[in-house]
Amino acid sequence: MILPMKTTISERLEQQMAFLVEVEKLKAIYRQNMVTDLSRHENSAEHSWHVALMAMILADNAADPGVDPIQAMKMLILHDIVEIDAGDVSLYDVQGNIGKEEREERAAERIFGLLPPDQKKECIALWKEFDERKTPTALFAAALDNMQPVVNHYASGGYGIKNRDLKTRQIIEKKQFIAEASPELWSFTHKTIMQSEEAGFYSPD
Amino acid sequence: MILPMKTTISERLEQQMAFLVEVEKLKAIYRQNMVTDLSRHENSAEHSWHVALMAMILADNAADPGVDPIQAMKMLILHDIVEIDAGDVSLYDVQGNIGKEEREERAAERIFGLLPPDQKKECIALWKEFDERKTPTALFAAALDNMQPVVNHYASGGYGIKNRDLKTRQIIEKKQFIAEASPELWSFTHKTIMQSEEAGFYSPD
Repeated sequence: MILPMKTTISERLEQQMAFLVEVEKLKAIYRQNMVTDLSRHENSAEHSWHVALMAMILADNAADPGVDPIQAMKMLILHDIVEIDAGDVSLYDVQGNIGKEEREERAAERIFGLLPPDQKKECIALWKEFDERKTPTALFAAALDNMQPVVNHYASGGYGIKNRDLKTRQIIEKKQFIAEASPELWSFTHKTIMQSEEAGFYSPD
Repeated sequence: MILPMKTTISERLEQQMAFLVEVEKLKAIYRQNMVTDLSRHENSAEHSWHVALMAMILADNAADPGVDPIQAMKMLILHDIVEIDAGDVSLYDVQGNIGKEEREERAAERIFGLLPPDQKKECIALWKEFDERKTPTALFAAALDNMQPVVNHYASGGYGIKNRDLKTRQIIEKKQFIAEASPELWSFTHKTIMQSEEAGFYSPD
């Protein structure tokens, strides 16, 4: 059975699809982490999938009952799309983080700007909320985004991290805000950091 | 400020994290499609991210007002996890599809079985609903999952598909159910299939 087909495609759908084709590029933005079979670096698209799944599974660990796991999931699906233009910058790269905010603002304007205006507005609002970490939902989403690489470091045998001369103190400094989002997740993350130190992936300090 | 830390980690969280570490393996399950810079095959984790994002953006194209875009997004985040054990089998691989259902059932049991029982049940229910395509939400999610590779073939210059001797008729046969989920998305998909045929990626038949 061949179903009837509309012959014209709306401008709205053309815009939506232009965006959805453009974001293919996130699959070619590589992070410091490795995938666990160590064959290559992890990319920001599969990282985004992983943290969105974490929002689904770990929502019951949120400290604040006001956390909306669906909004967190949406934020995490969108959060790295700006890297298509602005690149992935390591949390510990002081030089690379200079001017990051402006680069990401321009990227958001261009990439989400491919969407119909209402969806552009919605996506930019979600991305900004995530980036500012001021709401309980954004804080929880940011906690998941910060927890995932720590767990990945340990699961991938420290490969991709152990030669970067990171100190345990530096990691804890950047990650301890997780405790505000979820004491349970911070316990797990802290334990994993200490296991990675013990395995020699970070230097004790 | 170092926030207080719980010293014990609940069994529930240990189970959730065992699952979340196990699913790292989906990043090493490769599909027939290429990423658009043609550097490598697409993997099922980044594909899952892409289709979940499609659910967010394309929900207003669903034919049935009963489609729940959030449930569709969750289904799409989970839909390929069974491939960790069962592998990715092309839609057009007749031999490879024999016994697929049983292999995937066993995979779902094992992998979602790492989760706490309530979450195992929820995830298996979502995965089955998706797989059976009987509800409007599952049909819409399956439409997105089937639309994405067609758009990717065209966007990646047919690389990874043009030497597989696929006929336009075969593609249309497998994909035309998209029209039931959304006439608009089927129009776009059909147009893209015809453009790919014109570019020589599929043989006319």
